[in-house]
Amino acid sequence: MSRSLTIAVDAMGGDRAPEMVIRGADAALERDPDLAFILVGDEARIRPLVAKTRRLKKSNPEILHTDKAVGAAEKPSAALRTGRGSSMRIAIDLVGEKRADCVVSAGNTGALMAMAKFVFRTVPGIDRPAIAGFFPTLRGESAMLDLGANIDCDATNLVQFAIMGQIFARSVLGLERPVVGLLNVGSEEQKGHEAIREAATALRGITDMPFDFHGFVEGDDIPSGTVDVIVTDGFSGNIALKTAEGTARLIGQFLRDAFRSSLVSKIGYLLARSAVGQLRQRMDPRRYNGAVFLGLNGIAVKSHGGTDALGFANAIGVAADMARHGFLETVKRELAAVGFDKTNDERKVVATA
Amino acid sequence: MSRSLTIAVDAMGGDRAPEMVIRGADAALERDPDLAFILVGDEARIRPLVAKTRRLKKSNPEILHTDKAVGAAEKPSAALRTGRGSSMRIAIDLVGEKRADCVVSAGNTGALMAMAKFVFRTVPGIDRPAIAGFFPTLRGESAMLDLGANIDCDATNLVQFAIMGQIFARSVLGLERPVVGLLNVGSEEQKGHEAIREAATALRGITDMPFDFHGFVEGDDIPSGTVDVIVTDGFSGNIALKTAEGTARLIGQFLRDAFRSSLVSKIGYLLARSAVGQLRQRMDPRRYNGAVFLGLNGIAVKSHGGTDALGFANAIGVAADMARHGFLETVKRELAAVGFDKTNDERKVVATA
Repeated sequence: MSRSLTIAVDAMGGDRAPEMVIRGADAALERDPDLAFILVGDEARIRPLVAKTRRLKKSNPEILHTDKAVGAAEKPSAALRTGRGSSMRIAIDLVGEKRADCVVSAGNTGALMAMAKFVFRTVPGIDRPAIAGFFPTLRGESAMLDLGANIDCDATNLVQFAIMGQIFARSVLGLERPVVGLLNVGSEEQKGHEAIREAATALRGITDMPFDFHGFVEGDDIPSGTVDVIVTDGFSGNIALKTAEGTARLIGQFLRDAFRSSLVSKIGYLLARSAVGQLRQRMDPRRYNGAVFLGLNGIAVKSHGGTDALGFANAIGVAADMARHGFLETVKRELAAVGFDKTNDERKVVATA
Repeated sequence: MSRSLTIAVDAMGGDRAPEMVIRGADAALERDPDLAFILVGDEARIRPLVAKTRRLKKSNPEILHTDKAVGAAEKPSAALRTGRGSSMRIAIDLVGEKRADCVVSAGNTGALMAMAKFVFRTVPGIDRPAIAGFFPTLRGESAMLDLGANIDCDATNLVQFAIMGQIFARSVLGLERPVVGLLNVGSEEQKGHEAIREAATALRGITDMPFDFHGFVEGDDIPSGTVDVIVTDGFSGNIALKTAEGTARLIGQFLRDAFRSSLVSKIGYLLARSAVGQLRQRMDPRRYNGAVFLGLNGIAVKSHGGTDALGFANAIGVAADMARHGFLETVKRELAAVGFDKTNDERKVVATA
């Protein structure tokens, strides 16, 4: 039995909000009827949209009205200063006040990160939160972090990402003992930056936690699914994520060009349509929608701004999985087990003592 | 009229050497009859292979015998110390002694880089050589560097890569005025590492050279062909390259699975076969084969070790294009034009004076 959860939703974030958001919440209820929603945004627009849904209407969601929304181009610092009372901020505050279990938004990523960090605070001992997301692989699905929150990372950051990442994989991918790899330019021990080599040494030393450290992986190990969790700094992670997305789009375009190139190809396409549909489904970005801020004292999931109802429902599913699996409690417990429950200064004192 | 060139070939490097190498040289002659080859390796194996070719046999290539070859797993430092007399080293020496215009090898990358650097030396003023290669894009083909020679790069390295990269694009891609972009995690000026931001400022200031600086690009700009030359450090470049390769393999596998999933799909595949072949051709790694060490006083091209004759012929074509277009002379001239023809210490003296 799954316990009932309350999801705070920023109904005004995303290219096609609030329509996409309301239909996404409805779709999420189809998969998981034990969700209650608090919808934050323009009530005059939200109410008639809810009335058009089947399940969401019956669930009688709470609607918190606000006229204010964070702009897609607004700088994080500005959003933090002036965003009070916005749909995004109110949704985050609901989690901060324990009125909701998690928050989902398809709005401005930087603003969401800044506000969530401000309201939730970081988990004691975590120096920097990271963004985690999913990749399709030959073996199914992998998680990767950091996808862009931290340009420079030291060994401690990377080790913390690894610990949070394996808990994330256990919570959302349902793995019992995930395999973790560090992204590098070769698999030999002497490869890469000093921070990565140090992190590898530290991770090799952690043997009593429910994950296995595989060692270094390379870029092509991401899509081949060599490991379940890929750990990297936000610069490389962001470049890998976007390069993979762009390459998939390039091949999709080449495939469309090719099928259109002759009459016989067009007929072949018609017959193979379900096969192409199957490929499209396996690569469907909506399936992998939902980036998560790990390392905060609260669950915040960022949906892609351009997604549709199905993609938004997936992002809601990620947030619900994390809440149900007690992600935050597990993070605190497992970080404490390896001495990461103290602040940086406290750790230094311990190390010196 | 193209002038005749002499290509030194390491006949023993690569998974399927020397067969693949000899047939590759033969294929290269089909496209470009003005090539003369010096084949370095095991004469007893090379001679009968040459006898089986059409054009290569007629061209009467010189064969330099050696029993020694650099192992695929040999460390660069070991290869440098003990590799004298190996097929790779002799082929490089031929260029150093001006008996050949360029060298092509499908052997150990690190060993080739180390030996080429030792024999050729770096171009005056270039702090670190870089590895450049090609990517398929929506608009055709782009060049990218560094693909893995330098894990950490400062602003000066990146500016030098940009200058060498645009000359490379002019020489091999035949572009008159390439557009250069710096790989980053966003297009805004304040994004990324300090080194990248500094390099961007410096490149914006270079207005009298035959290229345009586009500014920052992101991972998905690589396959979309936003710019002709992508400049990055060797860590990010290596990860982007391998992530793109892996993603292409993933989609290829998904496509094969999908076409095999039903009888109708199989029939569709038969009809659309030429379309799929067209896709395969556009993404064919052999077309993009040939990574180049830029910044050395000599032309060395590294072929993928697992390639076939067609791929090796492409790598030979890259080397020939660079030699014909006077790549090395242009690099020296254009580096001098922006004050990079001095060593680091001389530059510091000038800056202080």
